[in-house]
Amino acid sequence: MVWEFWTTQLDEEELVENNYEEYSSSRATGMNGNGPSKLVDPLEDPLPGVGTYEDFNTIDWVREKSKDRDRHREITNKSRQSKVALLLSVIDAFSGWLLMLLVGLMSGALAGGIDIAAHWLTDLKEGVCLDGFWFNHEHCCWTYNETTFEERDQCPQWQSWAELIAGTSKGGAFAPYACGSGIPEIKTILSGFIIRGYLGKWTLIIKTITLVLAVSSGLSLGKEGPLVHVACCCANILCHRFTKYRKNEAKRREVLSAAAAVGVSVAFGAPIGGVLFSLEEVSYYFPLKTLWRSFFAALVAAFTLRSINPFGNSRLVLFYVEFHAPWHLLELGPFILLGIFGGVWGALFIRANIAWCRRRKTTRLGHYPVTEVLVVTAITALIAFPNSYTRMSGAELISELFNDCSLLDSSQLCGYQQPTNISETGAGNSLADRPAAKGLLTALWQLALALIFKMVVTVITFGMKVPSGLFIPSMAVGAIAGRLLGVGMEQLAYYNHDWLIFKGWCSPGADCITPGLYAMVGAAACLGGVTRMTVSLVVIMFELTGGLEYIVPLMAATMTSKWVADAFGREGIYEAHIRLNGYPFLEAKEEFDHSSLAVDVMRPRRSDPALAMLTQEGMTVGEVEALVESTHYSGFPVVVSQESQRLVGFVLRRDLLISIDNARKRQEGVVSASHVVFTEHAPPQAEDGPAPPLRLRGILDLSPFTVTDHTPMDITVDIFRKLGLRQCLVTHNGRLLGIITKKDILKHMAQIANRDPDSILFN
Amino acid sequence: MVWEFWTTQLDEEELVENNYEEYSSSRATGMNGNGPSKLVDPLEDPLPGVGTYEDFNTIDWVREKSKDRDRHREITNKSRQSKVALLLSVIDAFSGWLLMLLVGLMSGALAGGIDIAAHWLTDLKEGVCLDGFWFNHEHCCWTYNETTFEERDQCPQWQSWAELIAGTSKGGAFAPYACGSGIPEIKTILSGFIIRGYLGKWTLIIKTITLVLAVSSGLSLGKEGPLVHVACCCANILCHRFTKYRKNEAKRREVLSAAAAVGVSVAFGAPIGGVLFSLEEVSYYFPLKTLWRSFFAALVAAFTLRSINPFGNSRLVLFYVEFHAPWHLLELGPFILLGIFGGVWGALFIRANIAWCRRRKTTRLGHYPVTEVLVVTAITALIAFPNSYTRMSGAELISELFNDCSLLDSSQLCGYQQPTNISETGAGNSLADRPAAKGLLTALWQLALALIFKMVVTVITFGMKVPSGLFIPSMAVGAIAGRLLGVGMEQLAYYNHDWLIFKGWCSPGADCITPGLYAMVGAAACLGGVTRMTVSLVVIMFELTGGLEYIVPLMAATMTSKWVADAFGREGIYEAHIRLNGYPFLEAKEEFDHSSLAVDVMRPRRSDPALAMLTQEGMTVGEVEALVESTHYSGFPVVVSQESQRLVGFVLRRDLLISIDNARKRQEGVVSASHVVFTEHAPPQAEDGPAPPLRLRGILDLSPFTVTDHTPMDITVDIFRKLGLRQCLVTHNGRLLGIITKKDILKHMAQIANRDPDSILFN
Repeated sequence: MVWEFWTTQLDEEELVENNYEEYSSSRATGMNGNGPSKLVDPLEDPLPGVGTYEDFNTIDWVREKSKDRDRHREITNKSRQSKVALLLSVIDAFSGWLLMLLVGLMSGALAGGIDIAAHWLTDLKEGVCLDGFWFNHEHCCWTYNETTFEERDQCPQWQSWAELIAGTSKGGAFAPYACGSGIPEIKTILSGFIIRGYLGKWTLIIKTITLVLAVSSGLSLGKEGPLVHVACCCANILCHRFTKYRKNEAKRREVLSAAAAVGVSVAFGAPIGGVLFSLEEVSYYFPLKTLWRSFFAALVAAFTLRSINPFGNSRLVLFYVEFHAPWHLLELGPFILLGIFGGVWGALFIRANIAWCRRRKTTRLGHYPVTEVLVVTAITALIAFPNSYTRMSGAELISELFNDCSLLDSSQLCGYQQPTNISETGAGNSLADRPAAKGLLTALWQLALALIFKMVVTVITFGMKVPSGLFIPSMAVGAIAGRLLGVGMEQLAYYNHDWLIFKGWCSPGADCITPGLYAMVGAAACLGGVTRMTVSLVVIMFELTGGLEYIVPLMAATMTSKWVADAFGREGIYEAHIRLNGYPFLEAKEEFDHSSLAVDVMRPRRSDPALAMLTQEGMTVGEVEALVESTHYSGFPVVVSQESQRLVGFVLRRDLLISIDNARKRQEGVVSASHVVFTEHAPPQAEDGPAPPLRLRGILDLSPFTVTDHTPMDITVDIFRKLGLRQCLVTHNGRLLGIITKKDILKHMAQIANRDPDSILFN
Repeated sequence: MVWEFWTTQLDEEELVENNYEEYSSSRATGMNGNGPSKLVDPLEDPLPGVGTYEDFNTIDWVREKSKDRDRHREITNKSRQSKVALLLSVIDAFSGWLLMLLVGLMSGALAGGIDIAAHWLTDLKEGVCLDGFWFNHEHCCWTYNETTFEERDQCPQWQSWAELIAGTSKGGAFAPYACGSGIPEIKTILSGFIIRGYLGKWTLIIKTITLVLAVSSGLSLGKEGPLVHVACCCANILCHRFTKYRKNEAKRREVLSAAAAVGVSVAFGAPIGGVLFSLEEVSYYFPLKTLWRSFFAALVAAFTLRSINPFGNSRLVLFYVEFHAPWHLLELGPFILLGIFGGVWGALFIRANIAWCRRRKTTRLGHYPVTEVLVVTAITALIAFPNSYTRMSGAELISELFNDCSLLDSSQLCGYQQPTNISETGAGNSLADRPAAKGLLTALWQLALALIFKMVVTVITFGMKVPSGLFIPSMAVGAIAGRLLGVGMEQLAYYNHDWLIFKGWCSPGADCITPGLYAMVGAAACLGGVTRMTVSLVVIMFELTGGLEYIVPLMAATMTSKWVADAFGREGIYEAHIRLNGYPFLEAKEEFDHSSLAVDVMRPRRSDPALAMLTQEGMTVGEVEALVESTHYSGFPVVVSQESQRLVGFVLRRDLLISIDNARKRQEGVVSASHVVFTEHAPPQAEDGPAPPLRLRGILDLSPFTVTDHTPMDITVDIFRKLGLRQCLVTHNGRLLGIITKKDILKHMAQIANRDPDSILFN
């Protein structure tokens, strides 16, 4: 009976806006006063605002999911009654798919637009198309029919500029939430945190524009992190069109998880990799239903992007690769070397970047974000311009490094000595290993300089107040290192066919070493070292190459890189940034490896004052208000009596305040001396008392989670993670002892790791 | 303090064999008697058998995982002390990877062996190679140099037999656990159930041999389900070589999850699809670490299989496909039709198969499994032989149906009219649509008959006492239906170029319809309808074709098929078989959609006798024994006193019996009148009592899971699923009310679904 009332309450709570602002306005318009007996009436409108969250707070996954199940049950029950309700229930069931379709379409279209705009702007740095300024370099020259393919760079319509002004002046648009990669924040939001406005339409608009500017500015940054953010913004905005998702924070997060997959899908043209990325790296709660829907959305987005065809080659990405030669088992040696390099670089990068970001946060540097961006852009542009490998965009660089050199290739990287006769190259194999010529040696020098430059500048750039992805710069570093090693191996093999290690598989004139593959393995290793992605990284790379053949080298390098980087520190770059920002994020990957008990973590500690709790009857409105005012806790346990301390339920501060406030305004006779009653039936003494009691059982959570004081913390942490709890009460032999919140756990973990527990800012 | 003792207890429990048989033997060899005071000594050897499970029981995931964390903590602590311990800890950390490598190698090798053996035996049905009986048909004819490629079927060395004896006589080898698909049982085991011997070496050996016989016998069954079982057996056997996995049921299940991925990986040459299959369909607890390791193992297995090269074409599977023509958006219509067909067939198949299997279980039919197999094999062989499409093996049939017809193709399915001149085919497009000739029409008739035959015979075959997979027969049914529809569409388009729907994309002489693609879509739809796989199915198919191009048709068909099938009934074939067998499996995919509360499900019910509970002090050994003897419960809550009913902990029946038994034998002065004490310090009255008290705090679980009586069952079910609980205590205002076990929940769910609650057999 009691439960049924509560259930209905929750059902109807969904009909009000799950938003505090709207609550305030609806409260201002005035509601009918309700007698105390009516408050228990299930048909009555529930109080708006009850069951919602404040900004920078953590949601209660269990309650949200329970709310959604109630809603679903309601619809199912109704659908048995009439044809219209049945139709509505079918529409409701398919609305999730429709939403996914829209998210995929919108994100794919936006990604296409961003690609085209960034491409155009990048070329605008170099010159302008005289036929029409909106053409980019390639399109401009395509329209000029007389140019042959080889000479298209010199088409007369394309007017080259020497100025860099275009690049430097473009990085300067800001919005509070539009800067940075966005992935740390999205991880935190997906874990249940609320940051209002972070996924709103203004963020979307500003992020999209600044992303175009930032990518085309020539800074050492990529677009995949921001694309994930853009896709999540799209999803969040579209969620507002569907009641089911607007009103339920847990359901909305399912959609956002799918949107994260969409973001990576459009960034790399890798739908499966995107889904696995969302599963492995970003998401917190990822049920199988979401897996399937994410996959659908990722595919829709990829196909939308492909039909927009931003690169004019019907490929989804700039660096689609096709290799022709197989690799040899002995090459695993250099691949593992690349893995070690990637791991070391990843670990160093995280340390350096976090140190730099901390400096930015704590020193005066942080006060001048615009100046910082302009200075970094200017320096980047000045240093990058002379070197053709740093001048080109990250994606173009990677594309060139991944490429296999054929005989006809005119790129500097393919500046090998041309074979004097066909027989020398071994039956006309146009991909055979050849000795390096002057062009290639110059390219190698430039690449080495570019490597050092990229390594330094990425540390400074990531975390600046511009939208900045990390995938492309990390991959660029790895690709340069890999290509250098690859060319080195190739020359070694060419001049030393007779060495034992090359014997048998690398005869003269054969194409035994593919430097492009080394570049790719290096890129994967560095990206793995920085982000600690595993499966998703390999699958993304697999989707780029499209062959199972090269998975083994990628896997070897990624595994090595992760192990090496983990030896330096367990955190990936995103986790490090979450920690730097003090977000309440309970990492699912890291095992809690300490033997503390719940009693060691719970509040109140031994020296603290006793736990603030309410009794189920016997307290007056004034007493309750005084208790709430005197503390800052977001919820209070309700016990049978102060003596027995047997737990009845848990009530949230926000719900309590709203209900009392509402009752005082609309319910006659509710004064400070009125009794607050959490029991099912009002106690007899209240009826002859001075004022009618205020019944608040409706807002009481009768099923609070409890653990005993002897529960090991590893189990407690597991419960928090898996169920998505906000708080958990601690009992000893049936008596209430204390409370553990997510923040307490995070503080405890920080303490164990010898970090400052006060760095955890939110609850 | 208290916890530390318990922790150490658990640590050392791992040093004993986690196996009841070994416990019995060690007990028989005799142990030193221990004084009562020594029982609290943390250095003392723990009792063997405490903390282990009996056969056909469910494990406690929380306890197992906690045990593993304790073990890990121990190793980490030790590793700080000495170099040797550090090395041991590194070895321990990498032992998981080593195990995965071994599982991959062993499973890949076994799968290769099975493929080769089955191929040879299948051909043996048709004839024998005169040059050497161990060659199969293809290899035999390869060695005969004079045959041209087209005539290789007629090479003189290959002696054809007309007899079917070979086929019929081979299906008759049995072992209790080696029959069936194995996937339902593996799902149950992975969810935490214990079936001893199901993954043992004898099962492996017999399953491997019978699988070869069954596949080659011509029955309508596939090998992927049994291959999953074989891989899990390999993993389980290899686990026994590693202490970490031998002694921890939860850790071992992580390895088994990876092994399930390996099984699919070798069955289809689809490592990513295999991992997703394990994640989506089979696994219960699948942490990210397992994802990464599964992927590794799946890759190793795929490469092992490829280096064995069982099909002689350096492909992993028989039906690798490459299509050349793109598909048109309008073709989505027929693809969705195939999805509907797949869904309807899937739902009907499940109903018919379950009805048949129930009949087998309940009637006299079940008493003659061998006769049944022989009769079905004989009938299958007799009916199948005249039709060439039913005579060939399922994989060969699928391979042929998936194939695209080129001009040179000599297969009957490609019996199109040859174009009279080149210009007619449109610039020599060798794949252009052509009118059907007599050969194709015959083939269509045969295919239609084969479709009906396969549909009927698969219902009877799956569930018989032979190793039988379901993927290949389901796919065969779908592929036939798809090919029929595809050829129909092709002819329609050829003769009606001018129809509105074909205009614009299907000009004469173009290759607009690819019947092979229809076959593939149909196969995916039927497999989806039967198993309700989604992402993993699409990814497996993607890995078979290797192009993102065809994912959209596959996805459309799979989604439609799942929706249609779900409309008939939510259960896939594996869940239906699990339910048929009464295994205690809590489906993670199905939402609990009923508004009952914990108090409605818990025992004791209102009419039942009171809950059997122990008090923490004041009970004698005799009383405890009497209570345990009088009930069949597997555990008892311990309370402060019968009056207060405040919960202290939970003790398992098995642990209690073993401890009392042990104490009676070895501890002096323990008699029936001795007090049993669960408190930390013995109560004062016990010290002047007749006998020293028996302290059992060591076996008491001080952190039992509790929910309140008002907790909605959907939340309770969620807790059970996510934490992997065995039981959960129910409290009201701090007092113990009752207990909910996994079996109670399953019975409750059966009741809601109007099924017999007594069909749930195990706990």
